[in-house]
Amino acid sequence: MTHGYETGRLDLPFTGICTFARSPYQPDWSAIDADVAILGAPFDAGTQWRAGARFGPRAVREASTLFSFGHAGAYDHEDDATYLSDTRTVDLGDADIVHTDTGQSHANIARGVRAIRAAGALPVVIGGDHSVNIPCIDAFEGHTPFHILQIDAHLDFVDERHGVRVGHGNPMRRASEKPWVSGMTQVGIRNVSSTAREGYEDARARGSDILSVRQARALGPKGVATRLPTDKPIYITIDIDAFCPSIAPGTGTPSHGGFLYYDVLELLQQVAQRHEVIGIDLVEVAPDYDPTGSTSILAAQVLMNLLGFIFHARAERT
Amino acid sequence: MTHGYETGRLDLPFTGICTFARSPYQPDWSAIDADVAILGAPFDAGTQWRAGARFGPRAVREASTLFSFGHAGAYDHEDDATYLSDTRTVDLGDADIVHTDTGQSHANIARGVRAIRAAGALPVVIGGDHSVNIPCIDAFEGHTPFHILQIDAHLDFVDERHGVRVGHGNPMRRASEKPWVSGMTQVGIRNVSSTAREGYEDARARGSDILSVRQARALGPKGVATRLPTDKPIYITIDIDAFCPSIAPGTGTPSHGGFLYYDVLELLQQVAQRHEVIGIDLVEVAPDYDPTGSTSILAAQVLMNLLGFIFHARAERT
Amino acid sequence: MTHGYETGRLDLPFTGICTFARSPYQPDWSAIDADVAILGAPFDAGTQWRAGARFGPRAVREASTLFSFGHAGAYDHEDDATYLSDTRTVDLGDADIVHTDTGQSHANIARGVRAIRAAGALPVVIGGDHSVNIPCIDAFEGHTPFHILQIDAHLDFVDERHGVRVGHGNPMRRASEKPWVSGMTQVGIRNVSSTAREGYEDARARGSDILSVRQARALGPKGVATRLPTDKPIYITIDIDAFCPSIAPGTGTPSHGGFLYYDVLELLQQVAQRHEVIGIDLVEVAPDYDPTGSTSILAAQVLMNLLGFIFHARAERT
Amino acid sequence: MTHGYETGRLDLPFTGICTFARSPYQPDWSAIDADVAILGAPFDAGTQWRAGARFGPRAVREASTLFSFGHAGAYDHEDDATYLSDTRTVDLGDADIVHTDTGQSHANIARGVRAIRAAGALPVVIGGDHSVNIPCIDAFEGHTPFHILQIDAHLDFVDERHGVRVGHGNPMRRASEKPWVSGMTQVGIRNVSSTAREGYEDARARGSDILSVRQARALGPKGVATRLPTDKPIYITIDIDAFCPSIAPGTGTPSHGGFLYYDVLELLQQVAQRHEVIGIDLVEVAPDYDPTGSTSILAAQVLMNLLGFIFHARAERT
Amino acid sequence: MTHGYETGRLDLPFTGICTFARSPYQPDWSAIDADVAILGAPFDAGTQWRAGARFGPRAVREASTLFSFGHAGAYDHEDDATYLSDTRTVDLGDADIVHTDTGQSHANIARGVRAIRAAGALPVVIGGDHSVNIPCIDAFEGHTPFHILQIDAHLDFVDERHGVRVGHGNPMRRASEKPWVSGMTQVGIRNVSSTAREGYEDARARGSDILSVRQARALGPKGVATRLPTDKPIYITIDIDAFCPSIAPGTGTPSHGGFLYYDVLELLQQVAQRHEVIGIDLVEVAPDYDPTGSTSILAAQVLMNLLGFIFHARAERT
Amino acid sequence: MTHGYETGRLDLPFTGICTFARSPYQPDWSAIDADVAILGAPFDAGTQWRAGARFGPRAVREASTLFSFGHAGAYDHEDDATYLSDTRTVDLGDADIVHTDTGQSHANIARGVRAIRAAGALPVVIGGDHSVNIPCIDAFEGHTPFHILQIDAHLDFVDERHGVRVGHGNPMRRASEKPWVSGMTQVGIRNVSSTAREGYEDARARGSDILSVRQARALGPKGVATRLPTDKPIYITIDIDAFCPSIAPGTGTPSHGGFLYYDVLELLQQVAQRHEVIGIDLVEVAPDYDPTGSTSILAAQVLMNLLGFIFHARAERT
Repeated sequence: MTHGYETGRLDLPFTGICTFARSPYQPDWSAIDADVAILGAPFDAGTQWRAGARFGPRAVREASTLFSFGHAGAYDHEDDATYLSDTRTVDLGDADIVHTDTGQSHANIARGVRAIRAAGALPVVIGGDHSVNIPCIDAFEGHTPFHILQIDAHLDFVDERHGVRVGHGNPMRRASEKPWVSGMTQVGIRNVSSTAREGYEDARARGSDILSVRQARALGPKGVATRLPTDKPIYITIDIDAFCPSIAPGTGTPSHGGFLYYDVLELLQQVAQRHEVIGIDLVEVAPDYDPTGSTSILAAQVLMNLLGFIFHARAERT
Repeated sequence: MTHGYETGRLDLPFTGICTFARSPYQPDWSAIDADVAILGAPFDAGTQWRAGARFGPRAVREASTLFSFGHAGAYDHEDDATYLSDTRTVDLGDADIVHTDTGQSHANIARGVRAIRAAGALPVVIGGDHSVNIPCIDAFEGHTPFHILQIDAHLDFVDERHGVRVGHGNPMRRASEKPWVSGMTQVGIRNVSSTAREGYEDARARGSDILSVRQARALGPKGVATRLPTDKPIYITIDIDAFCPSIAPGTGTPSHGGFLYYDVLELLQQVAQRHEVIGIDLVEVAPDYDPTGSTSILAAQVLMNLLGFIFHARAERT
Repeated sequence: MTHGYETGRLDLPFTGICTFARSPYQPDWSAIDADVAILGAPFDAGTQWRAGARFGPRAVREASTLFSFGHAGAYDHEDDATYLSDTRTVDLGDADIVHTDTGQSHANIARGVRAIRAAGALPVVIGGDHSVNIPCIDAFEGHTPFHILQIDAHLDFVDERHGVRVGHGNPMRRASEKPWVSGMTQVGIRNVSSTAREGYEDARARGSDILSVRQARALGPKGVATRLPTDKPIYITIDIDAFCPSIAPGTGTPSHGGFLYYDVLELLQQVAQRHEVIGIDLVEVAPDYDPTGSTSILAAQVLMNLLGFIFHARAERT
Repeated sequence: MTHGYETGRLDLPFTGICTFARSPYQPDWSAIDADVAILGAPFDAGTQWRAGARFGPRAVREASTLFSFGHAGAYDHEDDATYLSDTRTVDLGDADIVHTDTGQSHANIARGVRAIRAAGALPVVIGGDHSVNIPCIDAFEGHTPFHILQIDAHLDFVDERHGVRVGHGNPMRRASEKPWVSGMTQVGIRNVSSTAREGYEDARARGSDILSVRQARALGPKGVATRLPTDKPIYITIDIDAFCPSIAPGTGTPSHGGFLYYDVLELLQQVAQRHEVIGIDLVEVAPDYDPTGSTSILAAQVLMNLLGFIFHARAERT
Repeated sequence: MTHGYETGRLDLPFTGICTFARSPYQPDWSAIDADVAILGAPFDAGTQWRAGARFGPRAVREASTLFSFGHAGAYDHEDDATYLSDTRTVDLGDADIVHTDTGQSHANIARGVRAIRAAGALPVVIGGDHSVNIPCIDAFEGHTPFHILQIDAHLDFVDERHGVRVGHGNPMRRASEKPWVSGMTQVGIRNVSSTAREGYEDARARGSDILSVRQARALGPKGVATRLPTDKPIYITIDIDAFCPSIAPGTGTPSHGGFLYYDVLELLQQVAQRHEVIGIDLVEVAPDYDPTGSTSILAAQVLMNLLGFIFHARAERT
Repeated sequence: MTHGYETGRLDLPFTGICTFARSPYQPDWSAIDADVAILGAPFDAGTQWRAGARFGPRAVREASTLFSFGHAGAYDHEDDATYLSDTRTVDLGDADIVHTDTGQSHANIARGVRAIRAAGALPVVIGGDHSVNIPCIDAFEGHTPFHILQIDAHLDFVDERHGVRVGHGNPMRRASEKPWVSGMTQVGIRNVSSTAREGYEDARARGSDILSVRQARALGPKGVATRLPTDKPIYITIDIDAFCPSIAPGTGTPSHGGFLYYDVLELLQQVAQRHEVIGIDLVEVAPDYDPTGSTSILAAQVLMNLLGFIFHARAERT
């Protein structure tokens, strides 16, 4: 393995067209040939307070260039490992969004995830609001049952309210209804939200394991990871508002008391080492509320580390 | 007429609960007793670029307090007139918005406008994106035919695209289909937008008078005003992006080359003097893109002057 | 107890007129009928660095709507409790502020607090700079002696400097002079500030218990709470700059090394469980320095949780 | 005359300690030896909406460095003149401000202006809010009567309201009471403000000439300048809100329809050529509302050009 | 000609990977096959005040998507023309920038422009600071002599200062030294800048025609255009600070009194109709100082209109 | 020791010319007579992502006034110590920066540091980007060998890449080559950066002790401090991106997972108590990305505390 410093471009982070991690752009979804495929899902009409997550994919792509300059892989001195040196990533661009039409927008997202799955790549969807998780899970129809790890401030387990069933307060409830979802672990849940007491009761009745930030910290990353079922593949959905507003202010419905960086990083590393990860979405980055770029950088840093952990673990397994 | 400086509160603009122009808050829409009723329509899922107009009503209300401190009416030394001293205004709060559901949100807006009309007050709707004009016009069903004065950068005359018929690019087309709309004058239209050539042809075929900023300036405010039919009442819809981004940057789809303040003020004054105005909406103020408050202040200043002109003209007529 | 999801409005947080927690607006201070009354005190001429706390009440009110959508009370899954379901709150609007006149502005604030006390409600004052604590304490004249819990970065114990006795560096000194204040616990105090060494000595001589952030953390929330006198009612004054600038940057004189969210939340919960709380002020939120809204959201979240704890404890006591 | 490019420092605008136009800092007010002396007056407790003008002097000083790099004077190709090459300017720093105490703060400003006058230099005071004009005019007590040219959006002619007589709505009224003020020309006045109809009548009764932006434009710069009395020296007070919010958003009470750059520049050039200018204040720059720096740059650019015009005209006269 | 609304994607402006005007991305500079090729030149070490133009290419690309949604060309109702319907544009990405090394960075830019010229496409370079014009002109070595139209606030005609010859104050001087540059017209020049009197004299001695904003307005767009030599092809360099800070605040060295939108648009239209345009650069967009996006939108809107004018005129000529 | 509250100025933080900690300004570098001398080094052409550190010195100076109002020294109640009461500090202003010329700019910085050393004062250099550390270390040529304590997110140990040897990724490598640098401790290093695996290997081969944030926390402040060689004087270089973006977002290349305030404060206190500190630089504060001022305040607070610790320890030693 060699980095390309002596030849080619220097490619400082402020230069060039922004794809995720400077990966090749593949607008032809029938020609995906990669280990990982990135799909933007810039839909934010499901939000209940501040919108703007429609610009999330662009912001996360741009932030990802900060971590992508000229290296063949990313060396981490704490782990003494070079991540992502052999992982082939492509960026599919964004699903087509149709304003005023939630159903069609969601359908277009699902179509992209199905194309990724069909190509045998790991789908990584960047939202958009948390409602985009709904078509992501839909696209796994027919998959062997899997467990969902949700990292989030909010339970998002509302069934229906004023007719709304596919807003950003509903995805976990929708997921729980799918035969191909065996259960879920919901971590970081705290404070008042749009889910009322009966939502928690419903979730627990359907087998959810709900942990607050303080509860997760008391268990530690390994303690949380070991609560996941060992025999199921894992789908990970990360709502950026799981994090403390101190590092993730750029989101629609921030909630104080959230996770700090290593809380989540170490949990993801534990899970990646122990489980097969079959899909990822990261949602609710709203760059208009992120004047310093902190939130987008966090999202890119978390995603790139998570991908590094997953493929490092896959390589170790083989 | 007397101002209340010696008694009561000083009510500096930074104090107090924000209703429009410090008018009484009337959440009971069956009990409207006023000359003017303000309705917020914080819906922005119809936008095609930047959202955020959902916070428009709040921002315009707050900005309006700048012009409302302790005076019995507003004295204008250029006109040597004190405006709004006898006009009774109430603020109805906002229509209820249902995320992911354009139809229900629009229906709630229409319900508010119908309530205002039923009470005999002048409806003033603050958006929200321009799609909120659709329920506003719907609520006039049964009214004697009226003419629409649209002040806007964009023609908003798209019929249907990818199934979308009620987004913020469609309202003028929708209005043109109503029997109770006799025609329209579209002023400020410029640059490329979501309306293609055939949209312009359709509009003209349905009787629209389309004027660019440069064309309107060449005619002058009076020249434009005299192109409106003298025998029809007027509904005024103001998209804040009609203005130059220099003073109205806080909007979803800004377009350079727009109107400056007096261009629009003088046109509105001419129209108010010559015509009966039966309804007003002002849309597309997106405060997240308005870091200095300039756009919200502009919206409030335009609305308050327009209301002053209308009721001053009414008083002069009687 | 039932939430109102099926009927009425959805009331998403971005809609409607902003009163604190969507409580009824009561501009008639002689007609208060509630458990809690909110009073804005938008005075910031007492500041020594950045002003802007005059917009604090508006910002906190707006942020509070995030936590107030359509629920009959707020369910907290960690405590398995639904807070505020039976607490009657009204919003009195703001005290009238007179620019250039500190004395008159403070007097107007005191008048509001006296009205709340006369109605038997719990006064909750939202500043404004910390000098607004002075009229709050003044308004308790005649009350049985109580203890003050101050959560703050700064001691605010300056007696007089260049003639200034009622600025935002003076309130605790002023309070210490009142016969109806029996003592105080000052928590979070750190770094250099406008109080010099003799201010600390004076405070201690008058019976203050001064704890830094690190000292308070070493004691733990319960350890701090048990240092308060058990036989005295408690008045709580929270300067938002007690918190770390990471979550509370929007304040006039930020100071690094402050409290994180749970530090304060758990202290307040301990105190609410153990003591009668007779008054609250929360000051120094300056939204112009809070571009992400994090500070206002923190203030609202802290206040609403504190009110929940207080009335939950009251209910448990009865 | 020679510029210093070949020797010494390059002094790019982003380097160095910020005094106005890189002039020497003279903290000893008894040792002023200069043609022009700059005094900061960072007082903003006189504001009625947004504060923040306390940071005006710093921002204008920093912006002035943009126009001050390494040149011996500033060449203007339109006038084919090199301005300020021989003018000696010193920066006195700021008057001491005492929070909560308007009287003392104003007295400290007056003391500075008296010191400048005693040294025979031209006083240039940078606010702060417009109330700082009051001590400026006070400091001219005993001067032969002079005329005031006010460039402003607001008349600022309120006598007294709720006891307030020295806020930022009162300075022109206060000035009109001085025997050493012979009259005033008030240009740019527009829209509703804190001055009611009787304020205008009072002003006119005391000899004011009031011109709106549109009226001033119709007259032209020379037309306005010729309305000033030819036999009186002139004191110029510039409220930055005289300008359009498009270029001067960073101010407490912006008002649409204001002057553009050349409107004011040409008026000042006309006045400088025709009259002796004895004092200047420029007020209401509030950098917190000026995210692009446009307002501070405007203030610096106007002040430096005005000083150039004044001393160029003085040189031509001699 | 047909737009693609019924089929394919809706491609709202907030979706997708950002190339200029959604044109195909062509990273292989030896395979350019287009009428127009866009090259980013994100170099800003030549700046003398605020940096940040390194992010100019990204911002202009993103803004250009606002004008690119789903249309086959852009219809302008004022001109009754559909622009850019047949023009083939590619985006080459950015030249490689080497921090601390101005020479290498400039060389990389020149290499890109030479590649575009070799392919017979029109080069359009997006800066970066104005120093990037130097390699752009270098890359035209051997071209038949052409005239430069510079639209700028500053003359940029400094020869050498403290050894600096290739900073953003030097490009026009450097261009004037090239045998393949026959002369230049410098429009918009105003106020003090880094060019002293002798710079103006040098420029005029070398045949420059220098016009201020006021002089250009007095001549009118056609009047200015007719001063260009009719027998020479034209290279156009646009410094965004030629525009008024009201619409172009996002730049390193803003200068008040600049052009408004139609001033420049109409000049460019005149020039495009009368002359062959052989190259374009647009520089100094610094998005960090452009919180509303106004400047980037302006740059995109000007460039797309200019390209429309050029190719429309070419089509009319043939 | 006495504070000056009763006499002289109140000197609120928002008033006056900004030198560091209100120390005297000494532009004559041959006349330094002080214990500490502050030098600004506003060079940022060495950055690889976001520039803007050129405005770091100004921002840190302004923030330092917050901690400098009218006190003779700063009382810390936790340490029961009054710091800086007898320390004489001067501010030298900034080194002259020459755009496009890294070598000359660095040379000017080195000249300043040599002047400070020649005067026997402690040099404190405020960057600018981390490349300014290179001339700082250069200026110590001939000094008895010393150890460097680097507090940073990034190793900055790149030797050469595309010819770049003096950018902000190279300083520690350059320092390691100097005979007068005996070794270094690099603390806070984390995540992927521009240093690849071989950079870490090189650093360790040259004797570096590299600690991540988590490793440093596990050791504790005292544990880290005791790893420094006890027999060497210490030079401290602080890259503000060592801190968590939650408190230090205003920097060019933020990295999540950084230090919180007390992590660094306590380490610095330990080091100051145990070692002679011979030089300090603090770099990479980029105020354009610091909308709340948090980063500048942090830098000032850290520097002032560090200086307090150093001179307090010196006094205790004597």
